[in-house]
Amino acid sequence: MKQYNLGFLGFGNVGRALARLLLAKSGELREQYGVEWRVAGVASRRLGWLTSAAEAAAGFDASALLSDQFFKDTYSPSNSIGAWLQDARPDVVFETTSLNPETGQPAIDYLSAVLESGAHAITANKGVIVHGFRELDALARSTGKRLLFESTVLDSAPVFSLFRETLPAAKLRGFSGVFSSTTNVIIETMEAGRSFEEGLKTAQDLGVAETDPSHDVDGWDATVKVCALASVLMNIPLKPNEVVRQGIRELSPKKLQAARTAGAPFKLMARARLGSDGKLVATVRPEQVPASDPLGNVRGTSLAVHFELDMMPGLTITSHRPNLQSTAYGMLADFINAVRE
Amino acid sequence: MKQYNLGFLGFGNVGRALARLLLAKSGELREQYGVEWRVAGVASRRLGWLTSAAEAAAGFDASALLSDQFFKDTYSPSNSIGAWLQDARPDVVFETTSLNPETGQPAIDYLSAVLESGAHAITANKGVIVHGFRELDALARSTGKRLLFESTVLDSAPVFSLFRETLPAAKLRGFSGVFSSTTNVIIETMEAGRSFEEGLKTAQDLGVAETDPSHDVDGWDATVKVCALASVLMNIPLKPNEVVRQGIRELSPKKLQAARTAGAPFKLMARARLGSDGKLVATVRPEQVPASDPLGNVRGTSLAVHFELDMMPGLTITSHRPNLQSTAYGMLADFINAVRE
Repeated sequence: MKQYNLGFLGFGNVGRALARLLLAKSGELREQYGVEWRVAGVASRRLGWLTSAAEAAAGFDASALLSDQFFKDTYSPSNSIGAWLQDARPDVVFETTSLNPETGQPAIDYLSAVLESGAHAITANKGVIVHGFRELDALARSTGKRLLFESTVLDSAPVFSLFRETLPAAKLRGFSGVFSSTTNVIIETMEAGRSFEEGLKTAQDLGVAETDPSHDVDGWDATVKVCALASVLMNIPLKPNEVVRQGIRELSPKKLQAARTAGAPFKLMARARLGSDGKLVATVRPEQVPASDPLGNVRGTSLAVHFELDMMPGLTITSHRPNLQSTAYGMLADFINAVRE
Repeated sequence: MKQYNLGFLGFGNVGRALARLLLAKSGELREQYGVEWRVAGVASRRLGWLTSAAEAAAGFDASALLSDQFFKDTYSPSNSIGAWLQDARPDVVFETTSLNPETGQPAIDYLSAVLESGAHAITANKGVIVHGFRELDALARSTGKRLLFESTVLDSAPVFSLFRETLPAAKLRGFSGVFSSTTNVIIETMEAGRSFEEGLKTAQDLGVAETDPSHDVDGWDATVKVCALASVLMNIPLKPNEVVRQGIRELSPKKLQAARTAGAPFKLMARARLGSDGKLVATVRPEQVPASDPLGNVRGTSLAVHFELDMMPGLTITSHRPNLQSTAYGMLADFINAVRE
């Protein structure tokens, strides 16, 4: 049995869902993996940098998650990422701070500090992977710690670990996917004859639209995911401005209804493919996809990715209506995979 | 760099496709995984038990795969599995002998001998998993060797390694799938207004129908796959006679066409689900599935499985038109996974 000190860097919806999941699965973690844990540090814009010394560790329970008061009463303040890491001495840090699609900062600097302190770095932040994968991956290798990020692209659906663990010596030639549930929900609402605004409202009510809807609607969200997949799975450090990108603003209900009726509905399709010249061509744009295609068939908030491999004609992974718990589970799986080896 | 002695137990289409793949990927195996290999033994009904002493190892190349003569000229005969293992001293054995859905024999006995000799056992034989998983898995653990079988259910699509490596601490509540390409091809042919016999002929021409078509047509093939998945992923040793099974013989072109027109085509659906009483209920039978469902949407020789997990609402894996090379790749991946740890 080993006890792990956990640090939460960012403690919003995903961080709290992960804490709930750790509590719910604590028996299984102990029995199946010999893993015990305590929350050694929590940091967020609201809470500041808080740590709890091992000797003073209060019993962290489900009720603690309902309010910030528990942490304020029980934990001590630090004043920077460096001091926080030194005071909390985490073995594993879960990073869920807000996405910065342009630079991935400050999360990249935080995770550098985490890895340098000797902790495993687990992130749900796709900006980090797009802008910092090479640097952080090299740092993780040099410190002997893990950088894991399963929740960044298809929520909990195992995409990165699939290639890392289950598809050795297979070459990825290209991939395509429906990566944005917000645009999918908006398109389906408009197919039903309602307006763009009603579609956006529905996506917001479902809790899938990002804070800034233009991020989804203009295809940035899907673009960042394409870059993350290309960087990690194809070892090509694709940047968002290298992706041909077009959002869904020019689609009208009439056009969408006609496409659906013709059996080839519009989807915001993300694609990347190695050309015969060895160059990667990546696009994110509305495309008509036959409803009989697994990607044309992705409904509502579900997400899917299709891989073209040298070793098999095609492999599609569909994640059905992933929710907050699914995203948190991706991070829990990363935690177990980081420590069980 | 380590050199592995390989043994082929069964050397038909899949075994030869694997040998071709090992040759094609030998550079990558050396560079990425530090793996070199030689074929120390080949055994099949046609060839008998043949081995090649390390000192006498002839250069095994692609041309050798085209005829049996190479092995007859270069290798020495043994007279039983025991003598073969002793003479060849394989580090890894690839088992692809014919399926025995009732007992899994003699492959189970062969693989016991393989594991006891200190070699990793890799099989594409689902009968072995249904009837011998517990015994062989325990034996593998006691010898410190691996029993791997990724190609048994969805060809190369990583189903078993998905759970073993990428979905820790997730509980499988049930699964459903389209596991039989032969029945899928027959049904689609009949949907197009042609006869059952024409459908069967098409499946045979595509090379997907098993030697005995009744094995596919009466649902045995799908049933054995349900049992393999339940045994390994849910730890429930389900046997074929515990599955409610109905084949596709009673479906007429008229009935199939009507269902397809109504948007809910028939599929030979395989299902297993834990009831509220903790009992597993498993069925294989023709069911109408909405064409908008990922499983209703599986076409031609493609295969798919849908998992219901406590941690995420649903995860579907679709393998598009897997071929002989895909099946062989599943075994190559098992080989790499067995030796890279």
